[in-house]
Amino acid sequence: MQASRRPLVDLTDLAHSDADPARRVSAMASQLVGSEILKIAAQIRSLKAKGAEISDFTVGDFNPRHFPIPGELLRATAAALAAGETNYPPANGVLELRQAVQRFYERELGLRYPLESILIAGGARPLIHGTYTALVDPGDTVVYPVPSWNNNHYVAMLGARGVAVKCGPADHFLPSAAALAPHIAGARLLCLNSPLNPTGTAISAGALSGICELVLAENARREASGARPLYLMYDHIYWMLCFGDVQHYTPPQLYPELARYTVFIDGISKAFAATGLRVGWGVGPVDVIGRMNAIIGHVGAWAPRPEQVASAALLGDPAAIARYHGDFIPAVSERLGLLHEGIQALRAEGLAVDSIPPMGAIYLTVQINPFGQRAPSGAVLRTNEDVRCYLLDQAGVGVVPFQAFGYPEDDGWFRLSVGAVSLDEARAALPRIGAALRALRA
Amino acid sequence: MQASRRPLVDLTDLAHSDADPARRVSAMASQLVGSEILKIAAQIRSLKAKGAEISDFTVGDFNPRHFPIPGELLRATAAALAAGETNYPPANGVLELRQAVQRFYERELGLRYPLESILIAGGARPLIHGTYTALVDPGDTVVYPVPSWNNNHYVAMLGARGVAVKCGPADHFLPSAAALAPHIAGARLLCLNSPLNPTGTAISAGALSGICELVLAENARREASGARPLYLMYDHIYWMLCFGDVQHYTPPQLYPELARYTVFIDGISKAFAATGLRVGWGVGPVDVIGRMNAIIGHVGAWAPRPEQVASAALLGDPAAIARYHGDFIPAVSERLGLLHEGIQALRAEGLAVDSIPPMGAIYLTVQINPFGQRAPSGAVLRTNEDVRCYLLDQAGVGVVPFQAFGYPEDDGWFRLSVGAVSLDEARAALPRIGAALRALRA
Repeated sequence: MQASRRPLVDLTDLAHSDADPARRVSAMASQLVGSEILKIAAQIRSLKAKGAEISDFTVGDFNPRHFPIPGELLRATAAALAAGETNYPPANGVLELRQAVQRFYERELGLRYPLESILIAGGARPLIHGTYTALVDPGDTVVYPVPSWNNNHYVAMLGARGVAVKCGPADHFLPSAAALAPHIAGARLLCLNSPLNPTGTAISAGALSGICELVLAENARREASGARPLYLMYDHIYWMLCFGDVQHYTPPQLYPELARYTVFIDGISKAFAATGLRVGWGVGPVDVIGRMNAIIGHVGAWAPRPEQVASAALLGDPAAIARYHGDFIPAVSERLGLLHEGIQALRAEGLAVDSIPPMGAIYLTVQINPFGQRAPSGAVLRTNEDVRCYLLDQAGVGVVPFQAFGYPEDDGWFRLSVGAVSLDEARAALPRIGAALRALRA
Repeated sequence: MQASRRPLVDLTDLAHSDADPARRVSAMASQLVGSEILKIAAQIRSLKAKGAEISDFTVGDFNPRHFPIPGELLRATAAALAAGETNYPPANGVLELRQAVQRFYERELGLRYPLESILIAGGARPLIHGTYTALVDPGDTVVYPVPSWNNNHYVAMLGARGVAVKCGPADHFLPSAAALAPHIAGARLLCLNSPLNPTGTAISAGALSGICELVLAENARREASGARPLYLMYDHIYWMLCFGDVQHYTPPQLYPELARYTVFIDGISKAFAATGLRVGWGVGPVDVIGRMNAIIGHVGAWAPRPEQVASAALLGDPAAIARYHGDFIPAVSERLGLLHEGIQALRAEGLAVDSIPPMGAIYLTVQINPFGQRAPSGAVLRTNEDVRCYLLDQAGVGVVPFQAFGYPEDDGWFRLSVGAVSLDEARAALPRIGAALRALRA
């Protein structure tokens, strides 16, 4: 290193500007809202740092002590590093991983895609951003059900027109063709996610078929008139995590023609508890995937090469996957089942709670709506935020309100994530929630 | 996994669309141009696959056989993996790496920044994209010297107005205040890179001081009028790779006040031959870095967690860095020096070549301009592209013309990158270049 050594320059004050933020950054950047979940997580970190004991159900992540990555993935990553897999991966991903994804989709999902349909990136997020960016012009309409994860933020980044379609508990918070139909004309992108973050519910074949028919009918009209097509972003990052006899369905499986309009979002992050290794893949129409490749290349959101090589080995090893999921999926569903049963027991006792049976992912949908009741402090609980803070203070339980997922109603629905808690922690949280709710007065 | 097993659906044909590309993707995506360098690299891969022996000086990357990453980085990444560093890193990077960068800049560059000035991302590219996105609105003016790397692409992605300021061999293809001054009024972002990709030349303290004074004077005027400031993106990803007594300078070292307007782009990719590990950092004003953090978080271009933890250990180990650079930097500069001397020998012989003494990075600037001369095939060489193809066919030498870096002139300037070649390969290329040039006829 040949940096010219000079006396130390202290920039601590100069790095802080008190100028008008709107002049300092771009219009998009000044309007961009940070993640609500990360704000709550920061609050919990700060409480924990002061010694509070919190059961943290907030972050859609894994505690590696409870949920380590597959041993095969760990060893193959270390081996790839040692073998010198340390330079740039090809822009669209290392060939062996693209081929492994191709075979994996054929083997496990019954979908045979050409190799040029498969693009590797540094996690699922860059592929979501890439899908939006490759398809959506400023002012275009993007339709997405709420609650859902971050579509509001991507719409804001692109300067698109977002249409949030509210889903409710009767449909497990999942969309139907009937709910989406009024908003499809003129839309450019429809965003679906199943199993759904934040609800842990999975779309049925019937509901998905209805939506597929809607998209196909709309595109038949558009092709006749020469209009731009409607695309379907199908984020199924949690598809390997379905419980019991819940089945995962995909649009091209139901209607092959939808392969022309569907972009899949997928990766190792959730299915293998590997959120920190940054390997995702998109699968879709060759022309769209090609443009996503160009965009993601300029953004530079590539997956690290050793992890790409190791992911290829894992996807090509069905026995290793089966062994891992044989432990992992029951461990997730046991935590969710325990919480669900505990909430139902509190409900049977007459407390103002409810929950939806978990179907997949790492989430439980819980309603806690003791609205109008009075806390021991004298404060009356009126909003989701009141309930969230009360549970955090009184029960040491961290949860995320559905508003963090674009859901507009203040009606007591929350996401509980179990990736970062032990079975004992999950069990211990229930009596504390019960006690906190019993301490409320009408 | 619970995917519903059904008969295989073959989507090979459906995934290929023959519809009008302009209707299929966004306006930005349809206009985005792929990397010229990657196209040339693909051509060389295809020639090699047919058995041709090519000395590949095209890609700004490393062959791990010749340039492995530091052993400390390899071992610390494997150790972090084994220790369960496998879940999400914090959105702005793991704390120990941000602290390590903070101490590293103080120790090696004499710049003391607050911790909130430091942002980790998945390589340098996401930080360049994040800087552009956080600062530049569509229609804003971005000034950059050419030749330079990819500024034209980022300008296109943002819908900005790019002003490419041509630099020439007399200034080592580096910009001066005089060249930039006519374009600064009203500009939002000025992009500098030193040592420069593609030239391997480094800016002098005098030239950088002049540019700093220009930016400060412009911003003094703007602050007086309430106008939006001019920012300086200072990409110094190659700063640790300076040769001999070449010194690296930074704007805040020369003028501390520039810390208010400067965003540094940096990372492990080039300095530690670790392009595939995807760890970079940005350092700049707290407010801008905060907005870059929000944008990069939504894009999801995060560095993998094990590599972040390992990079922290490496940056905190000056002895390991000195040991590594003690081998690495001489190995790079030896290859560049050998090529430079070889080209100068051909020049002394009367051939139409020249080169600029290498100062840093992994590049040599070479002119090969036998324009108007006739190849044995009878074809007359008229353009850089003619020369490039002639060298590839006749000498088995792959080079990249400066047009790939936004430089407009067809005057015979090329980038030679030595990261992927052995000393013997570099040496063997010279007589082949000489023979090919001697085979030309007036």
